[in-house]
Amino acid sequence: MTVRLGILGYGNLGRGVECAVKETNDTELVAVFTRRNPSDVTIASPDVPVVAAEELLSWKDKIDVLVICGGSATDLPVQTPEYAKYFNVIDSFDTHANIPTHFANVNASAEASHHTAMISVGWDPGLFSLMRAYTNAVLPNGSDYTFWGKGVSQGHSDAIRRIEGVADARQYTIPVEEALQSVRNGENPELTTRQKHIREAFVVLKEGADAEAIEREIKEMPNYFADYDTTVHFISAEEMKANHSGLAHGGFVFRSGTTGVDHEHGHVIEFSLKLDSNPEFTSSVLVAYARAVKRLYDQGDFGCKTVFDIPPVLLSESSPEELRAHLL
Amino acid sequence: MTVRLGILGYGNLGRGVECAVKETNDTELVAVFTRRNPSDVTIASPDVPVVAAEELLSWKDKIDVLVICGGSATDLPVQTPEYAKYFNVIDSFDTHANIPTHFANVNASAEASHHTAMISVGWDPGLFSLMRAYTNAVLPNGSDYTFWGKGVSQGHSDAIRRIEGVADARQYTIPVEEALQSVRNGENPELTTRQKHIREAFVVLKEGADAEAIEREIKEMPNYFADYDTTVHFISAEEMKANHSGLAHGGFVFRSGTTGVDHEHGHVIEFSLKLDSNPEFTSSVLVAYARAVKRLYDQGDFGCKTVFDIPPVLLSESSPEELRAHLL
Repeated sequence: MTVRLGILGYGNLGRGVECAVKETNDTELVAVFTRRNPSDVTIASPDVPVVAAEELLSWKDKIDVLVICGGSATDLPVQTPEYAKYFNVIDSFDTHANIPTHFANVNASAEASHHTAMISVGWDPGLFSLMRAYTNAVLPNGSDYTFWGKGVSQGHSDAIRRIEGVADARQYTIPVEEALQSVRNGENPELTTRQKHIREAFVVLKEGADAEAIEREIKEMPNYFADYDTTVHFISAEEMKANHSGLAHGGFVFRSGTTGVDHEHGHVIEFSLKLDSNPEFTSSVLVAYARAVKRLYDQGDFGCKTVFDIPPVLLSESSPEELRAHLL
Repeated sequence: MTVRLGILGYGNLGRGVECAVKETNDTELVAVFTRRNPSDVTIASPDVPVVAAEELLSWKDKIDVLVICGGSATDLPVQTPEYAKYFNVIDSFDTHANIPTHFANVNASAEASHHTAMISVGWDPGLFSLMRAYTNAVLPNGSDYTFWGKGVSQGHSDAIRRIEGVADARQYTIPVEEALQSVRNGENPELTTRQKHIREAFVVLKEGADAEAIEREIKEMPNYFADYDTTVHFISAEEMKANHSGLAHGGFVFRSGTTGVDHEHGHVIEFSLKLDSNPEFTSSVLVAYARAVKRLYDQGDFGCKTVFDIPPVLLSESSPEELRAHLL
């Protein structure tokens, strides 16, 4: 079986999908679709066409799964339900609070058109969600802890950039080491927002900006920073480019719980990711699940799916026999 | 839905299943079956009958899933295929090398009788297998590392107990901290057997036994100890009972790999378990998967399954909607 993939949107995520396809023997990149002028978009694969997004529908029969690489704020809520009318689709929609609505929209569209769709694939939502589901099921009496970082938070960086006098900003979310250690030791701590993560901001000022006022405005910003211990560093544009262009990220999911007649035995389950490239890792997860989408479609299993619905065997290039013999 | 469970075999694992059922709202323990004289077996649940194993077949219609809590060496290879003729069954068969044969036997039996069976459920095989499968799929270019411990290895303890002059023995498998750290740092080390784990043995001697000769025999025992750095401690029977009766265990699964045009980005995925009670945790996993077995049976999905075949949604007491809203 070869899974023929199309990419819609060639940013960091689209580029990552292009790379991830090359690590498999059974997926193939058929075309990259862009809303920009195709002649302005140079991709890494010389023999793959770059096509205007308006032409997508004429590729219906050449693509098994369309990997939609847009943003969760405005792109995916429109694109995924729309293209599920014509394609099997997969996205990495990551606005947790809006997942039920997005699911309902995509499901309606995919069920009506007899396609298989999958949303919220990546690491959180994605692998972290899987960990929460598995560990809650196998350890019903316990507590969940999720920590993010160290990594750049796009939303918090954007919030700083919107401040008058700020030319550029990058904000790192960092788990508090003592909190991690306490959870890891099975102490079941009750942690406030401030006790779980610290925030570190690197800011480039516009000429004449008031550093002290900006630092105060950042640290007191409600929702984003007021509930955290935040450190602000003012740096030059050169330093920003040299030291803060990376896309590393990661995090931790814990389940800490007990078993036994009197709950006398404690257990700690820990899952962690250390990622040099957040978008490339997310893309790698997308490509594995795109394989599952094609297999479900071939079985006539239509509608919208999430990572909770997919048996692990469908993700693998290896046969069930090979998996049982070598990985079980 | 209530899942009515029977337990076959009331050792540590059977007792663990009995405990785990109490942590759920949708499973119920119907009876405990034993090969011993039922009147000699006292269980923790006063209102659950203890029944002779020979009477099992008359309970066919009262049990949704039979949890077979025997040993992998001689019990399960016989019991699981046999009882899959009459029941939906689940076991924790953990002799990795024999899984394909056990699978084939159980599958033939369950397919013929239209039952759903599941083998090799627990943490290794089980959750660790899941981690290997998921992480291989999402990071195809990489290396796997599994470490066990710190915990008692039953097989290695038994090997020492068979030595002339040994009254009792307990052997701990312990991961080497430097090896863990190197893998965690993404250094992709090539590790020999000796570099991954150390072995620590606690031995009670029979009167007049030659401690020096026994220590040498342990350390030079092929397969079991010769390839490891092993420490041997001679202790009293009282000390054995006081300090080495615990059933704690655990371990680590890592996937370390790269993505990017030139594989320039490294990623490390780590999953670990720290368990106060190995059998109670294994039992907890069995009960969650027993729920899935019943659901697959109700869907008419017969034959033998492993953790690779089960979508996570089937493990949970929560509805798919709740899982999407709260854990995705």
